Amino acid sequence: MKLDTRLFSFTGGSRGQYRVTSQATLKGEPLPTVTHLDVVQGEATGETFVLRGVTSNLRYTTAFESAALRAIQAAPGRTAATCAALIPIRKSARWWDMPQDERRAIFEEQSRHTTIGMRYLPAIARRLHHCRDLPGEAFDFLTWFDFAPADAPAFDALLAALRQTKEWSYIDREIEYRLVREA
Amino acid sequence: MKLDTRLFSFTGGSRGQYRVTSQATLKGEPLPTVTHLDVVQGEATGETFVLRGVTSNLRYTTAFESAALRAIQAAPGRTAATCAALIPIRKSARWWDMPQDERRAIFEEQSRHTTIGMRYLPAIARRLHHCRDLPGEAFDFLTWFDFAPADAPAFDALLAALRQTKEWSYIDREIEYRLVREA
Repeated sequence: MKLDTRLFSFTGGSRGQYRVTSQATLKGEPLPTVTHLDVVQGEATGETFVLRGVTSNLRYTTAFESAALRAIQAAPGRTAATCAALIPIRKSARWWDMPQDERRAIFEEQSRHTTIGMRYLPAIARRLHHCRDLPGEAFDFLTWFDFAPADAPAFDALLAALRQTKEWSYIDREIEYRLVREA
Repeated sequence: MKLDTRLFSFTGGSRGQYRVTSQATLKGEPLPTVTHLDVVQGEATGETFVLRGVTSNLRYTTAFESAALRAIQAAPGRTAATCAALIPIRKSARWWDMPQDERRAIFEEQSRHTTIGMRYLPAIARRLHHCRDLPGEAFDFLTWFDFAPADAPAFDALLAALRQTKEWSYIDREIEYRLVREA
């Protein structure tokens, strides 16, 4: 897929398709407070800030895991999924300095990242954007989720489970926007 | 490491620190012919073209392989290494659509990419730059090599060995610049 179709911009300001219902800084420096957020495919300018990320190839997922995920996951954008969340995170240099097999072992064999996410499919849809290697970006990943209002407790449980893992001890900046679609 | 220090620009034109001794298109679209090339840390503008890439975390290398490489490899830039090469490559969608374990198996268990490279250490120094996820870039990787003139036959052998691997069947664009340092 052409890179132009893989690049997404998340813009924060006083208007946008999504209204911010809460903005929490879990670790590290906060971002400016905004009331609205927009999701734009491609480049965009933001009133208060813009965060950019690129969907890319799988970095840890095995063939078996990939097939299992594809069999049940949903893509973001379902009409009923009026609740959404944007979670920008950054991982420490200690994480990135590890070789592939050590990061994989912490990600899945120890932290069960994919296994935990599987439990909430297809209710919680997810799209991961990479930005560690993008010039000018402060985060490593932007994860976008959407779900129906009735699935908000399940989403809370998903976040709580992930944040207790060993993998999360390598996260040194994390911000959480909870959103409601208005348009 | 800050991203600004991980970004490298390779500029092609009629002047630069490196003189182009040969430019070959092995697969896919060629690049414009140039007589000189420069390597710049950070952003740069090029007279004829500029290729940008970012050094990043290891994508396939295990802890054992990483320790073995670190024990013997040299960094580019040695005074005696007056010969250099820049090899921009792109891999097919078929490659990128594979999950991590299948790409790893082709990369090392079947193609012996790291094992082949090890044979030529420390004579051939190498730095890999990623650009698949960089907006505006046409290649997936830019690999930079340097070596002393006496090691040019070893470098030829390294390229010949890699180009016979299964991994290389997934490469759909490859260009090779052979260079001599003038400054």
